[in-house]
Amino acid sequence: MRRIAGGLETRAREELFINIHPIQPGGRLTPEAMKAIIAYGDGYSTCDWCRKPFRLDKIQRPPISEFHAELAEFLGMDEARVVPGARRGFQAVVSSLIEKGDSVIVSSLAHYTEFLAVEGAGGIVKEVPLKENIVTGDATARKIEEVKRGTGKLPKLIMIDHFDYAFGNEHDVYGIAKVAKEYGIPFLCNCAYSIGVMPINGKQIGADFLVGSGHKSFASPAPSGIVATTKEWGEKVFRTTQMVGDVTKRKFGIKEIEMLGCTLMGANLIAMMASFPAIKERVKHWDDEIKKINYFAEEFVKIKGNKILGEIPRKHTLTKVDTTESFDKIARTHKRRGFFFSDELSQRKIVGEFAGATRVWKLNTYGLTWDQIRYLAQAFQEIARKYGISVGE
Amino acid sequence: MRRIAGGLETRAREELFINIHPIQPGGRLTPEAMKAIIAYGDGYSTCDWCRKPFRLDKIQRPPISEFHAELAEFLGMDEARVVPGARRGFQAVVSSLIEKGDSVIVSSLAHYTEFLAVEGAGGIVKEVPLKENIVTGDATARKIEEVKRGTGKLPKLIMIDHFDYAFGNEHDVYGIAKVAKEYGIPFLCNCAYSIGVMPINGKQIGADFLVGSGHKSFASPAPSGIVATTKEWGEKVFRTTQMVGDVTKRKFGIKEIEMLGCTLMGANLIAMMASFPAIKERVKHWDDEIKKINYFAEEFVKIKGNKILGEIPRKHTLTKVDTTESFDKIARTHKRRGFFFSDELSQRKIVGEFAGATRVWKLNTYGLTWDQIRYLAQAFQEIARKYGISVGE
Repeated sequence: MRRIAGGLETRAREELFINIHPIQPGGRLTPEAMKAIIAYGDGYSTCDWCRKPFRLDKIQRPPISEFHAELAEFLGMDEARVVPGARRGFQAVVSSLIEKGDSVIVSSLAHYTEFLAVEGAGGIVKEVPLKENIVTGDATARKIEEVKRGTGKLPKLIMIDHFDYAFGNEHDVYGIAKVAKEYGIPFLCNCAYSIGVMPINGKQIGADFLVGSGHKSFASPAPSGIVATTKEWGEKVFRTTQMVGDVTKRKFGIKEIEMLGCTLMGANLIAMMASFPAIKERVKHWDDEIKKINYFAEEFVKIKGNKILGEIPRKHTLTKVDTTESFDKIARTHKRRGFFFSDELSQRKIVGEFAGATRVWKLNTYGLTWDQIRYLAQAFQEIARKYGISVGE
Repeated sequence: MRRIAGGLETRAREELFINIHPIQPGGRLTPEAMKAIIAYGDGYSTCDWCRKPFRLDKIQRPPISEFHAELAEFLGMDEARVVPGARRGFQAVVSSLIEKGDSVIVSSLAHYTEFLAVEGAGGIVKEVPLKENIVTGDATARKIEEVKRGTGKLPKLIMIDHFDYAFGNEHDVYGIAKVAKEYGIPFLCNCAYSIGVMPINGKQIGADFLVGSGHKSFASPAPSGIVATTKEWGEKVFRTTQMVGDVTKRKFGIKEIEMLGCTLMGANLIAMMASFPAIKERVKHWDDEIKKINYFAEEFVKIKGNKILGEIPRKHTLTKVDTTESFDKIARTHKRRGFFFSDELSQRKIVGEFAGATRVWKLNTYGLTWDQIRYLAQAFQEIARKYGISVGE
């Protein structure tokens, strides 16, 4: 095998295979982003023309400042910043709003990075119970009341995922935003799985903060992400430094504390900018992505024993499936155990399933062509038939 | 001009010019890092083989876990993590150690990101005064005493730059480490300008924390960085989450709070890994880099009026110069003002000076060949002669 340096192998999964990895498809680079990282790979490549006031999001050449303005507009928010991953967005908001002991409402399907952000700030997560694996506005309101009764104080922040990582289900963020407004609690909508693949408008949702992920859904290298907010909340979360050196009297006035000054300098930001025109176009075709996953889901459950665990019809391409009563039955007696399934898939040039897993696992069809989708559906049926699992019409 | 997408121009400064930008040369990619980002550019490219316990620094393929162990060893520390920039290293350490109102000793030449890290945690910076633009162990001890008298408490952390951003001077980190030990205060040595270009051993220095920058000195894309520490302090700064979901009872046991779980997923980490063999080799040749900058400095001050503002002989390639009494005299009456100087340089295929600045500015000769160094020195002398500034022998 060819090596780049030391034990580092080359990676060509996206070139050689159909990749159904649950979290990878939305972060696959566009050709423009690939060109961008080649041109801007060197460390401080974005700093060639950095001038006063010396902050990343103010740089005119390359047009980083313009990108920030357009990004905010694209998301229906007043202000946007790029950050190294959605998690840094959670951290910045939580750290600005939460004091020790404060409660933060999260989903019972909250991503672990939301837990960490709250814990880092000394807060306490309070999970909204699920109804059929969905978080609703009503359930959020009940949880707020419960926290109020239990602690004598309202939660300081509501942080709910638009689509969760576990089932790829859509949660009632419009209803939750309404509840948040009624209680006067700021609402952070975690759009790591939606910004960059579907149209998102924070004002329409009624969110105070939107957080997105570059590597998850914005065709960009990791780590990259977005935090966007309103003018009002921007003043708090993007507050600038007030610290003064006791000896030198130095001040660094325009630098934002939570952003640590400049955030996503370099290739990752430039890749986001390079992918942006393609992103603006691709979100218009989300409905076709949904048609494809639903076609796939219908074909997939024709295999006897197969189940889709998320909501049906699918509203996201990220999908949790259960093959305990189909492929796992084969795995139980196969000498390669669950890996028989991975072997069969990789022989068909399909990768991205969790190798060895044949019970509950996840896949994501985002960005596959209709030809690839049909091929994928047929491949699973072919494997089923090969092992004597019946496939319906 | 060719465009990548929208208004995004290609960047070819390192290919077409001699780049003397103060902060760019150490972050110029190696050929291996360039190959790496092409192969691993896609979002979650490092996650193909992520298995239990599901944390970036534990991944075996590509050999991320091995890289972390080797990196710690290379730095003479017990534990290392990669982070999105040195600033995230400061933040992680400060946020772990500092409570509201605590004092943190910093240099009077501290980087602004250290101010922000302290401010974010609610701490207060206390600057050590300079002696000829150098921070010494003695001055640090005096500052500690002053803080103790003034606040009734010892500072909670000493955070001093090995080489500062302003003059590129070397500070007495060995002496400071000794003082820190005497007072029992942890010492973070900011090696953003040294890790990756010269040999650094944290145990030899006596530091409790080392912080490095990938884009500044480790031939890697931005943002990338390193935080390394001892086993003892690792337990505090790399503490794992204890938060439990109140409804689901979920726990995410192995995830580290300050690291927000996984840190530098993707191309940036892989580029660091790809550059690592070349880094291990290049740090052995730091003495030659020092010979080159000192040769350059000698030639540079032959131009009448030119001054070097940092310590002489130079101990770092990052160098602050003063041309107020030479090139700035020309600028005062030239119709292009200070830009005449940039014009002259760029005609000679030299870039990276602060365009338009002819008084006090910075340059960095790191990585230039001897031929390029001689060419660079001659170019400045040529420009001087062209405008009637005398050049000594």
